[in-house]
Amino acid sequence: MAFTDDLRPLADDLWDDIVAHPMVSRLGDGTLDTDPFEYWVRQDYVYLIDYSRVFAHGAAAAPTLDQMGTFAELLHETINTEMDLHRAYAAEFGISEADLEATDPSPTTQAYTDFLVRTAATGTFGDLVAALLPCMWGFNETALRLEADGMPDDERYAEWIRTYAGEEFSELTAWCKDLMDAVAADATAADRERYRDRFRTSARYEYRFWDAAWHEETWTVG
Amino acid sequence: MAFTDDLRPLADDLWDDIVAHPMVSRLGDGTLDTDPFEYWVRQDYVYLIDYSRVFAHGAAAAPTLDQMGTFAELLHETINTEMDLHRAYAAEFGISEADLEATDPSPTTQAYTDFLVRTAATGTFGDLVAALLPCMWGFNETALRLEADGMPDDERYAEWIRTYAGEEFSELTAWCKDLMDAVAADATAADRERYRDRFRTSARYEYRFWDAAWHEETWTVG
Amino acid sequence: MAFTDDLRPLADDLWDDIVAHPMVSRLGDGTLDTDPFEYWVRQDYVYLIDYSRVFAHGAAAAPTLDQMGTFAELLHETINTEMDLHRAYAAEFGISEADLEATDPSPTTQAYTDFLVRTAATGTFGDLVAALLPCMWGFNETALRLEADGMPDDERYAEWIRTYAGEEFSELTAWCKDLMDAVAADATAADRERYRDRFRTSARYEYRFWDAAWHEETWTVG
Amino acid sequence: MAFTDDLRPLADDLWDDIVAHPMVSRLGDGTLDTDPFEYWVRQDYVYLIDYSRVFAHGAAAAPTLDQMGTFAELLHETINTEMDLHRAYAAEFGISEADLEATDPSPTTQAYTDFLVRTAATGTFGDLVAALLPCMWGFNETALRLEADGMPDDERYAEWIRTYAGEEFSELTAWCKDLMDAVAADATAADRERYRDRFRTSARYEYRFWDAAWHEETWTVG
Repeated sequence: MAFTDDLRPLADDLWDDIVAHPMVSRLGDGTLDTDPFEYWVRQDYVYLIDYSRVFAHGAAAAPTLDQMGTFAELLHETINTEMDLHRAYAAEFGISEADLEATDPSPTTQAYTDFLVRTAATGTFGDLVAALLPCMWGFNETALRLEADGMPDDERYAEWIRTYAGEEFSELTAWCKDLMDAVAADATAADRERYRDRFRTSARYEYRFWDAAWHEETWTVG
Repeated sequence: MAFTDDLRPLADDLWDDIVAHPMVSRLGDGTLDTDPFEYWVRQDYVYLIDYSRVFAHGAAAAPTLDQMGTFAELLHETINTEMDLHRAYAAEFGISEADLEATDPSPTTQAYTDFLVRTAATGTFGDLVAALLPCMWGFNETALRLEADGMPDDERYAEWIRTYAGEEFSELTAWCKDLMDAVAADATAADRERYRDRFRTSARYEYRFWDAAWHEETWTVG
Repeated sequence: MAFTDDLRPLADDLWDDIVAHPMVSRLGDGTLDTDPFEYWVRQDYVYLIDYSRVFAHGAAAAPTLDQMGTFAELLHETINTEMDLHRAYAAEFGISEADLEATDPSPTTQAYTDFLVRTAATGTFGDLVAALLPCMWGFNETALRLEADGMPDDERYAEWIRTYAGEEFSELTAWCKDLMDAVAADATAADRERYRDRFRTSARYEYRFWDAAWHEETWTVG
Repeated sequence: MAFTDDLRPLADDLWDDIVAHPMVSRLGDGTLDTDPFEYWVRQDYVYLIDYSRVFAHGAAAAPTLDQMGTFAELLHETINTEMDLHRAYAAEFGISEADLEATDPSPTTQAYTDFLVRTAATGTFGDLVAALLPCMWGFNETALRLEADGMPDDERYAEWIRTYAGEEFSELTAWCKDLMDAVAADATAADRERYRDRFRTSARYEYRFWDAAWHEETWTVG
């Protein structure tokens, strides 16, 4: 059995929690207020910077030239293309580039990105892949489920769903699952146990990232 | 003006928030239930392991032999002595070594330790020192303030206060502040801005670590 | 004075040593045997893999989004385009892709790439830039000097000179020098002293890399 | 079969080369000039600093608390005790602490320490152990073989042999071999292949470190 099949019950529980969360269900039916979504747009911008760093560490750590090349391409596309698309998307909500640059990470963004970069910088290549997988799989699964329930009227929310349910992002998710399966197939049982732990932590953060936007979470002190 | 004097207003606000928190004020007057404190003991054990890793990265990154030597000593003492003391302290609450080993990090412990290790592994030596300082300064200041208000009857809470208000821990705090001042004195304005940011993040986590124990925080999903 | 102007006397001495070396002077006048040059082609392939890792670490460590973007682009181009060009160039000497993949690093290649990756992974961003600069500056300067003396008849050697004296590689070198100057302008005197040390070590390796090819260096034991 | 038994033929060939080298055989029979040995003493001091950093990275990366504790102890002893012993030993040759501090790494010292720190900082825990093992095993085996051939009259050379053939260093070597075997027993075939490669590189450097002292190696350019 492929390792990602082994992860599926754990993953499905978390994807269920995510689509049941009001932040996501209202995005899907178009009834979501723009305030929490604009909060999400700002925090996702901050997130994308460290997400790019994970690709950079992946390129540095990859054991084969092919894998190095793929991580290099993902890094290049994210930092030099996706960030521009994100800026354009933010502008649809009246959020300027200066606003994005001035955004401080929320507690949840700080926690999630520190987990990702710490794992990428100090773990094995397999740990990095395991921590990265929920970022792709979670968005893809969420968007596919929302799409299956029908598209919202708000074109901006529909665009979000089309992006992450679309062919390109689905292929990216499939690549990451295949990579995880390939790495896990050659790993020891102790390695796989560690991968499961890293996967679960990121998957939990996928839920918490939505929840933080819903509550427009702040640091409260300091 | 020494850099830590420059940090003091920010720090004092956070130490004020900490001693005003019911978890800490009740520890100080001895009215704290053991449930949240046992939660704290368990999470602090998990915390100490990554805290040791910060010392290890400090020894690897220190620019002088003297600093390498000090970080090496702190690492050795923490992992080979302090952890034993912590196990003995936990036993006073009926928490076994097996319980400690089986403890999973709470969301706040995970966030704080990932921040520390990420900063230690990928930042400069000054970043590491700035992230480390609130761990020492915050406990020392908290314990000194509680001690000044009079010791609790519960001997176990009094022991906590004596440990972190005591001479040895006060000297450790003074050493870390002096190190921060020395590193900051030779740094650029941009470096110092980054140090302030790292310091603030750890100081916020000092507060949140108490708050998480008070609420016996769980992951809620996954 | 720009920091790279400050480095120039040190650099010029090393570029003088390089163009005076028989490996380089004979490449320039076309009298070089193909044996040591084929050795160079094989080792340069091994070198390019870790050189790409330096770009990856640069993208992870860069303090600005612009710099992250540039390192991401350099990484992507090197691993996904330059390596192909190198394979095609190797084929002109009858060296197959399988030969390239099977090449073990010589002592000098091992030493140079370990220095680069160690510096990139454990030093500051400025240290990384200082260690990287001689890779670009040295090849560009060498090729420009050879070009000024007239092109060799052997088309393959002429191609080498055109590549590294050409506009694209000259612009890359100018970018790296500008980046070094910008980083050094905001650094402390101690930082700049460390940058000089890292620069000198890589510049020495530039010379030794040619010398190792000339002698077709082996490990001799083990 | 234990992994270190599997490494033994490769290792024995290198220990044979080492004891046959004039630098080592003359140390053993007491006919070695002090000039190359003083060069060795200076370079070994430089080496010990990065060797300590390898222990620090080992403590940061160790998967169990016991292993963290052992690496912490080795780091503490090396940087806070062994370095003092080395200074005292250097003084027997008229080499002052200032001389030691002012020593620049030779090409071989630079190459060996960059390999060790790069491997420790970017490899897996098993890679680190594999790269570390020849430092201990090689000295222990060399000293044991020299001791078996009879002790030299020069008390300072005899002291060298007694140190590295002695019980304490022999136990350290046994610990490192046991650790390598334990890590390798739980590893994949690909991991073990990488460990063998890291082990071989360090073992080659053990030979080259003696050879560099014999020739009082310099950088020649730059």
